[in-house]
Amino acid sequence: MKPVSKPVSTTLLLSIDLFGTFVFALQGASTAVQHELDLLGIMVLAFATALGGGIVRDVLIGAIPPNSIKDWRYPATAFFAAAVVFLGHAYVSQIPYWPLIALDAAGLGLFAIAGAAKALDFGINPFLAILLGGVTGVGGGTIRDILLAQVPNVLRADIYAAAALLGATILVLGIQLKLRPALASTLGIFTCFTLRMVAVHQHWNLPKVLNR
Amino acid sequence: MKPVSKPVSTTLLLSIDLFGTFVFALQGASTAVQHELDLLGIMVLAFATALGGGIVRDVLIGAIPPNSIKDWRYPATAFFAAAVVFLGHAYVSQIPYWPLIALDAAGLGLFAIAGAAKALDFGINPFLAILLGGVTGVGGGTIRDILLAQVPNVLRADIYAAAALLGATILVLGIQLKLRPALASTLGIFTCFTLRMVAVHQHWNLPKVLNR
Amino acid sequence: MKPVSKPVSTTLLLSIDLFGTFVFALQGASTAVQHELDLLGIMVLAFATALGGGIVRDVLIGAIPPNSIKDWRYPATAFFAAAVVFLGHAYVSQIPYWPLIALDAAGLGLFAIAGAAKALDFGINPFLAILLGGVTGVGGGTIRDILLAQVPNVLRADIYAAAALLGATILVLGIQLKLRPALASTLGIFTCFTLRMVAVHQHWNLPKVLNR
Repeated sequence: MKPVSKPVSTTLLLSIDLFGTFVFALQGASTAVQHELDLLGIMVLAFATALGGGIVRDVLIGAIPPNSIKDWRYPATAFFAAAVVFLGHAYVSQIPYWPLIALDAAGLGLFAIAGAAKALDFGINPFLAILLGGVTGVGGGTIRDILLAQVPNVLRADIYAAAALLGATILVLGIQLKLRPALASTLGIFTCFTLRMVAVHQHWNLPKVLNR
Repeated sequence: MKPVSKPVSTTLLLSIDLFGTFVFALQGASTAVQHELDLLGIMVLAFATALGGGIVRDVLIGAIPPNSIKDWRYPATAFFAAAVVFLGHAYVSQIPYWPLIALDAAGLGLFAIAGAAKALDFGINPFLAILLGGVTGVGGGTIRDILLAQVPNVLRADIYAAAALLGATILVLGIQLKLRPALASTLGIFTCFTLRMVAVHQHWNLPKVLNR
Repeated sequence: MKPVSKPVSTTLLLSIDLFGTFVFALQGASTAVQHELDLLGIMVLAFATALGGGIVRDVLIGAIPPNSIKDWRYPATAFFAAAVVFLGHAYVSQIPYWPLIALDAAGLGLFAIAGAAKALDFGINPFLAILLGGVTGVGGGTIRDILLAQVPNVLRADIYAAAALLGATILVLGIQLKLRPALASTLGIFTCFTLRMVAVHQHWNLPKVLNR
C-alpha cells in the first residue's frame, strides 16, 4: 500500500522521527542500566523503546517494510543513544528529574503527532489515525515494559497515553480544518507536551470506577 | 493481497465480528476494573482483548490494514463496551458467573469460526486456517494477559484454545464438504460453545506429561 | 513485496529452516513441560519458540503471509517436535546438558543466517539484514519467555544474541565479498555456534555499566 496523498510534510516527519527516536532510545537505555542489563540488553531496550511504536504503526497501516527496517538512520540513532548511555552513564544518571520528564514528554508529543500524520497520509480515517498516533507514542514504552515483564505504564494511573491521544486529536482536527500541516503539528505537540507536564506536576490522574 | 475467492459470507462475518467484539471488550474492560486500572486502561484492555486476535490474524494473512484499523465500527464497538463497564460497573459486576462464562464461550466460538473463514477466503490452506481460527479466538485474551504481566490463560490448564480449534476444524471440514457456509459456521460455533461450557462445568483439562 | 533478487539458496534455506524449527520446537516444548503446562500449552510454546522469530522477520520485510502460515511443513514440524516431547518426555528429559546447549546453539546459528539471507533477498540493506538475522535467531525464545511472563533471555547477561548477530554479520560480509552463498552461510553458522559454545563453557558475558 502506498500513501494515498502527498505526505503532510516528509522532511518535518523525518526530523521529528529522528529526534523522538534519540530521546526515547536514551530513556530505554537508561531503564536497561537501572535493571543491570548488559550492553546488548541496553541496545535492545533502546531500539524497542524508540522504534517499537512506529514499527507497530507501520505494520498496521501497511507501510511495510517499516521505516525503521528500511532506513538505517533509525536504528543507527537508537544505537547511538545506547552508546551515549553506556559510555556516559555516570553523567546521564545525574540529569535531574524535570529535564528527563520534559524530554520524555517532548518525545511523546513528537511521536504521537508524527504517527497520526503518517496514518492520515496512508488514507486511514481520522478517528483511527488518532488511535494510531496514540499507539506510536506509547507503543515503544509498552514493548519495553513487556520485555521487562512489568505491567506497562500505559495501563497504570497517569495522564500519559491520554496526552498522546489529545495531541493527535489536535493534529487531525487541524488538518481537517485545512490548517497548514506545520501549524497543526506544532499545536498538537505543544498540547501533548503541556498536558503531560502539568499532569505530572499536579499529580493528575484519570478517573477509576468507584463503586467496587 | 486480496481474497482469492468470494468471501464465505461478508455480512455474516461483520455481524459475528461486531457481536464477538462487544462481548470480548466487555470482558477485557471488566478485567481492567478488577485490576483497578483507570479509564484509559479500561479502554486499552477492551480494545486489546476484543480486537487483538483479529489484528494478528489479519497481519499474518496479509489483510493489511486490518479491519479494526480500516473500519471505525470495530474500535467504536470496543470503546462502547468499555463505556458500559465504566459507567455501569455496579450492575455489570453483579452479572452471575454462568452467564459470563456463556458470553465468553459464545465470543470464543464466533471469533474462531470467523477467523478460520477469513483465512480460507485469503487462500490459506485448511490446516493453517484452523490454526488461525484458534489465534483469532484466543489472541486477544493472550495480549490482555501479557499486558497484565500474567501467564496467558491459553497456556494454563483448561479446555479453551482446544474448543476454539475444534470449532474452527468443524467449519473448515464443513466448507471442504461443500456444506452451506451458514450451516458450517453454525455447527462450528455450536461445537466450540458446547465443548467450552461442558469443560468448565465438568472441570475437564487436557493431559499433562506424567513421568517428570 | 517480492524478493528483488534470486534467493541466495532456496533449498538450503528450506532445509536449514526446518531443521532449526525442529530443534527450537523441542526446546520450547521442553520448557513447557518444565512449567507443567498441558498438551496444548506444549504445542503453543513449541510453535512460538520455533516459528515466532521467522514470523516477525517475514512481517517486517513484507514477506506476507509468512512462510510458517503459507507452508504447512513449518507448523507440522513444530507440532511433531511437541509430540516427541509429550510422548517421549521420560527420554527427552534425560538428554544431558551439553548436547542440549549444542542443539540450541546450532538452531541459533541456522536461524540467524537464514534470517539475514532472506532479508538480503528482499532488498533490505546489509546493516538491517544483520539485525533481522538477530531477530530471527532470538525472536522465538523471546516470545516464549514473554508468554511465560519472564524477562527474556536476550536481555539477561549471556552471549546469545551477540553470537547470532556475529554469525549474521559474517554471512552478510561474505555475500558482499561475493563468496558463494553456501560458503558464507557455513562460515556464519560455524562462527555463531562456536562463539555461543565457548561463551557458555567459559561463562563469558558482555560488559555492564560499572559506575552506577
